[in-house]
Amino acid sequence: MNEFDLIQHFFAAQKHRPDVLLGIGDDAALLTIPAHQSLVVSIDTLVAGVHFPVNTNPEDIGYKALAVNLSDLAAMGAEPAWATLALTLPNADENWLKQFCAGFFNLANQYQVQLIGGDTTRGPLTITVQAHGFVESKHVLRRDQAQVGDLIYVTGTLGDAGLALQQLQNNIPPNNYLLQRLNRPTPRIDMGLELTKISKCAIDISDGLAADLNHILVASKVGVKINVDQLPKNKHVTSELALTAGDDYELCFTIAPHYQNEVTKIAAKLNCPCTCIGIIEKPPGLRLQYADGSECNIALKGYQHFC
Amino acid sequence: MNEFDLIQHFFAAQKHRPDVLLGIGDDAALLTIPAHQSLVVSIDTLVAGVHFPVNTNPEDIGYKALAVNLSDLAAMGAEPAWATLALTLPNADENWLKQFCAGFFNLANQYQVQLIGGDTTRGPLTITVQAHGFVESKHVLRRDQAQVGDLIYVTGTLGDAGLALQQLQNNIPPNNYLLQRLNRPTPRIDMGLELTKISKCAIDISDGLAADLNHILVASKVGVKINVDQLPKNKHVTSELALTAGDDYELCFTIAPHYQNEVTKIAAKLNCPCTCIGIIEKPPGLRLQYADGSECNIALKGYQHFC
Repeated sequence: MNEFDLIQHFFAAQKHRPDVLLGIGDDAALLTIPAHQSLVVSIDTLVAGVHFPVNTNPEDIGYKALAVNLSDLAAMGAEPAWATLALTLPNADENWLKQFCAGFFNLANQYQVQLIGGDTTRGPLTITVQAHGFVESKHVLRRDQAQVGDLIYVTGTLGDAGLALQQLQNNIPPNNYLLQRLNRPTPRIDMGLELTKISKCAIDISDGLAADLNHILVASKVGVKINVDQLPKNKHVTSELALTAGDDYELCFTIAPHYQNEVTKIAAKLNCPCTCIGIIEKPPGLRLQYADGSECNIALKGYQHFC
Repeated sequence: MNEFDLIQHFFAAQKHRPDVLLGIGDDAALLTIPAHQSLVVSIDTLVAGVHFPVNTNPEDIGYKALAVNLSDLAAMGAEPAWATLALTLPNADENWLKQFCAGFFNLANQYQVQLIGGDTTRGPLTITVQAHGFVESKHVLRRDQAQVGDLIYVTGTLGDAGLALQQLQNNIPPNNYLLQRLNRPTPRIDMGLELTKISKCAIDISDGLAADLNHILVASKVGVKINVDQLPKNKHVTSELALTAGDDYELCFTIAPHYQNEVTKIAAKLNCPCTCIGIIEKPPGLRLQYADGSECNIALKGYQHFC
């Protein structure tokens, strides 16, 4: 088997985008950017045994390798367009690659993301995907735009992927819902696009809420008060997991308070829950409290960058 | 050591390009493309022990990981602009990483290529670089534009990297010139830019002249007659090596015969030798002959894709 031929087979079945002047098959791809739009580029690597258990279903690996990059585009408010795939494989396992491609292209086709190039090499299983999208630069969502008085929201529920991983590590089989949350995260693309109208500031929660929110705080030179009782989470997910577990790929964003009703409308329209979990304040740092105003002393274990 | 901090240190010393609205430090980079230009994107992975001997100098690895991608941009006639770096490292060896960065950024700075994003992960040594550049789409150099009657040229000399690799594999230390050719290939960026004025068709020679030229033949639906006595090569490089050895990163391009004088002028201006090695013909396939017109029967060993 030639890996590239197999990928090409899936690629050929994709609907080709008019902005791809030359895709796979030359020294490089040739692409056009819509007028008045800027290019958004994200890149992420998944290493077997580090970013996913080695026995993970290849279809899930293919899906997730693209999903984590689309999640980055969502956090910028960008519309996805193209992806490249650098795939290092230990051996030519046609069945593995077919399943991998099924997962990757399934998600790509959902968002009209065209594969425009790649490289297949022999070596330990490593997948690097780069995703490209468009946004008007004045509407981009950044980490450094949180303002004192802004409300902090998160999409979806927190800690599901972390709980699934914890159960797998303890040889407890997670239920289907949790497994899907770990292996098939939904990139919040539509939400990111809607947020460009009412927000200036977002990040995706890949390293855990506390760690990623802290990136916003540092970049924006602000602090935050979080109501721990408001953290959206499912049964069996502790507040600690909701605050620290990675791999959720939900969005954390800020809005001026007068946009609250808009968030409610967007959440309903997209069927994507959005929960207000706190408020941006002037003093730096992340302060946790319960709904009654009392201080919460959850240790943010494993959370290195927190200050 | 935090790998990313160290890369950031080198990155911070780079001259920042005005077309980078957001570089490293958000979920994704935000970039602007010049008006009337298209985007060119290439991606290549180097795996330790597969694409370079494991004991290769890290500075050379850093240089080459970018160089092979810039060579792809050169083959499209593109002007380089940005790069991303996905670096998987087995352990946190600060000295190794410093040297790697020195090689990578040395070359990047030569061509005003700004690092705009990346991912550092733990795992077996694997380096994926993606390079981005610009070209006017009507002037792009493609594989499918060779015309019957066009002359075929190559830049530089062929087979040097292959000879160096052969010597290393036989425990013969290659001389400095050959080592440089293997580890520090010169991406022919300036030549690619000049070629956009007189050529429509180019490829970079990464898999060996015969293999890469064949990509042109198949894409352009033409054949070629090569004068083996004309192949530009150094002492000890056999015609077979010149035809089949990879890693040269020279350009192979075609021009209409009336542009011959232009090629001579450009070659002199850029101090980049260009040698006419044959002519595009209608019958498909690659035909080798000597200067006296007699047939040459060099076996194109290891050359799978040749038809």
